[in-house]
Amino acid sequence: MKPINVGLLGIGTVGGGTFTVLKRNQEEISRRAGRGIVVKMIADKDLDKARALAGNEATVTDNAMDVVTNPDIDIVVELIGGQTFAKDLILEAIAQGKHVVTANKALLAAHGTEIFAAARDKGVMVAFEAAVAGGIPIIKALREGLTANRIEWIAGIINGTANFILSEMREKGLSFQPVLDQAQALGYAEADPTFDVEGIDAAHKITIMAAIAFGIPVQFDKVYTEGVAKLTQEDIRYAEELGYRIKLLGITKRVEKGIEIRVHPALIPTRRLIANVEGVMNAVLVKGDAVGPTLYYGAGAGAEPTASSVIADLVDVTRMQTADPTHRVPTLSFQPDLLSDTPVLSMDEVETAYYLRLQVVDQAGVLAEITRILADLGISISAMIQKEHASDEDTVNIIILTHDTIEKNINSAITSIEALPVVTGQVTRIRIEELSS
Amino acid sequence: MKPINVGLLGIGTVGGGTFTVLKRNQEEISRRAGRGIVVKMIADKDLDKARALAGNEATVTDNAMDVVTNPDIDIVVELIGGQTFAKDLILEAIAQGKHVVTANKALLAAHGTEIFAAARDKGVMVAFEAAVAGGIPIIKALREGLTANRIEWIAGIINGTANFILSEMREKGLSFQPVLDQAQALGYAEADPTFDVEGIDAAHKITIMAAIAFGIPVQFDKVYTEGVAKLTQEDIRYAEELGYRIKLLGITKRVEKGIEIRVHPALIPTRRLIANVEGVMNAVLVKGDAVGPTLYYGAGAGAEPTASSVIADLVDVTRMQTADPTHRVPTLSFQPDLLSDTPVLSMDEVETAYYLRLQVVDQAGVLAEITRILADLGISISAMIQKEHASDEDTVNIIILTHDTIEKNINSAITSIEALPVVTGQVTRIRIEELSS
Repeated sequence: MKPINVGLLGIGTVGGGTFTVLKRNQEEISRRAGRGIVVKMIADKDLDKARALAGNEATVTDNAMDVVTNPDIDIVVELIGGQTFAKDLILEAIAQGKHVVTANKALLAAHGTEIFAAARDKGVMVAFEAAVAGGIPIIKALREGLTANRIEWIAGIINGTANFILSEMREKGLSFQPVLDQAQALGYAEADPTFDVEGIDAAHKITIMAAIAFGIPVQFDKVYTEGVAKLTQEDIRYAEELGYRIKLLGITKRVEKGIEIRVHPALIPTRRLIANVEGVMNAVLVKGDAVGPTLYYGAGAGAEPTASSVIADLVDVTRMQTADPTHRVPTLSFQPDLLSDTPVLSMDEVETAYYLRLQVVDQAGVLAEITRILADLGISISAMIQKEHASDEDTVNIIILTHDTIEKNINSAITSIEALPVVTGQVTRIRIEELSS
Repeated sequence: MKPINVGLLGIGTVGGGTFTVLKRNQEEISRRAGRGIVVKMIADKDLDKARALAGNEATVTDNAMDVVTNPDIDIVVELIGGQTFAKDLILEAIAQGKHVVTANKALLAAHGTEIFAAARDKGVMVAFEAAVAGGIPIIKALREGLTANRIEWIAGIINGTANFILSEMREKGLSFQPVLDQAQALGYAEADPTFDVEGIDAAHKITIMAAIAFGIPVQFDKVYTEGVAKLTQEDIRYAEELGYRIKLLGITKRVEKGIEIRVHPALIPTRRLIANVEGVMNAVLVKGDAVGPTLYYGAGAGAEPTASSVIADLVDVTRMQTADPTHRVPTLSFQPDLLSDTPVLSMDEVETAYYLRLQVVDQAGVLAEITRILADLGISISAMIQKEHASDEDTVNIIILTHDTIEKNINSAITSIEALPVVTGQVTRIRIEELSS
């Protein structure tokens, strides 16, 4: 059978890795796919770099549209990133009847609905395993491996930069800024680290997983997002003492009223496997009603791990490209005309447990005032410890762990507590996720 | 579209779970599959039980061949087990042009080649996600998720019973027999625990994974198998002190001379995620050349977790059943006419590191004699500790960790060491797997 022709848009880290791995493993890949998969055209602004990579195996251009409109190209691999030009390219590729493989989580989280609808109209596939958790085949697990299950929730360490920062802070006792500097020096964090440390990248990924898990449209604008920049050494240490580790989690959960989609730091029991995922590694914990908890672990970024997912998609698309579209795995796991309109809940409605750290004046009656506020809001306490000598010598740190409560109530409680004269400074609030059921 | 009709052979644990989950989640499953999947016929020797389960939704018979030959049945789910009748049923189902889903690892490990060839001739699918690691979608990960990779090795905790026993021995300081008794009382171990504790069940599973990972035929007869019955509390404790945890691993590895397939207890560094998989849970660590290490964790047995895999296969087969067979994922991941004849190595040729425990008379010169034997065979030592007071007061325990060496050499060394008059009793030998590269 004649080989499948791939047009590669962008030869940055992932694009370069994709070209390299496809070439190195071409024999095994074609033994699996049943035919060759070859990069026929490469588009990149850096023509010299593209020429050096392509050798005499692929045509090179600095105009990506030339690849998209070339009738010889069967599959377009979009690895340029961003939400403007990349979107135009993908929509044009679809319009030209080409299948698309992309790692562009930001684009899919925001514009997936439009892109998937266009692909459906043209009967082509849009595959995006590389968009979530790098080399871990989590999209395939959710979309195909767990089809028997009603998915209950997903909790993932899906940003390697943030996880590296938290691991280093904990292991070396450092504060956020020096570790971020180190991550940047090592190339684990971008010059502008906002997307990673503020949880935006993780929010893109959990948006996509939520859509696949629950059969809902991608709804990035409804995701609650909180990053790791404000976490302190103090909280990491207290968490450890209490048997928890702090991780930046992307969480999506089906509850009675709707679907939660949120990204924030969370205390996880140290005995959970996922709490022990350190450094730049990623892991996604999925709870299905039949299978129970399953965990998927691996490299969440990097040239070849991400290329592994891009190429897995290429093999899938190659196998299915001449098949009737009704036989293919639906883009969002559920048949597109059967998507659900279950609402995404606001953060106020989310119910979870909380870690609160308060700095209070060391005098009689303080605890009574605080616990009264919590009790009046129906918030019950599961543990409380008092730590002497916060930064100010006259104050002490009080750590309170609550049982599950509504976020709205905890926010009211914090407002009232902060208004107490005996409480100095802001209350630190970190959510607790037991990940047990 | 009209529903797919399933014939269910056997309603033991997994069969019952499959019926229950298919029924409970039918709405979500058909939203994913694009059509209904219904159990139309049930075969079981226990007709009353079958009738109670089926209600008025499925026909019941005690003759499984009736299901296999019924022209209304599209997919046969074989959950009877065993290698005789189950094989006849599967071959007859294939002959009748039906697709087959099975959890029968023993049958596939021994007779997979014959069964897969028959299925290929008839253009039907044989799916077996449930045969390996229960609910973990590891077959899908290997066969589809990691297609870009040259798989280097797989190491799995793929027998929950053995893992439960080792976890309990370590956590509670008990010896093998009382923990086995407890496992039997809890229903984690069969009345005849041989398959689980002797590593045979794990050997079936690693045989299947080796075939998929390396594109070789299933070759159960060439697998080296060693169980957990001889492990002592002493070795578990010494391993822990040295930073290792002992696990029963199924390992398959591609090396220069061929392919290793083996099951045996192994010391794994405690800091590896897989070393922290406890109780009846399973986990499979896969090393691909592009993706690096990835880990898949979940329930390795049980009614609903295993049903989760059976049903995932049903959805896959439903999607693909009217498609041209060339579009389907090849049974063993690689196109069947492109399987490799790379040899499976004998255990003698395997290269790994070793933990040796020797009981020696406490006198001068003993270490010199032992280290001379190792040196003469080119075995280098990475660590050695002496533990006083073994069971006999006049002897001491010596623990030696070696660097990688050929199994044949370590066996020679052990024979020579055991022949030394200063060495009392047998040398304990446990392999060490760093699982690092």
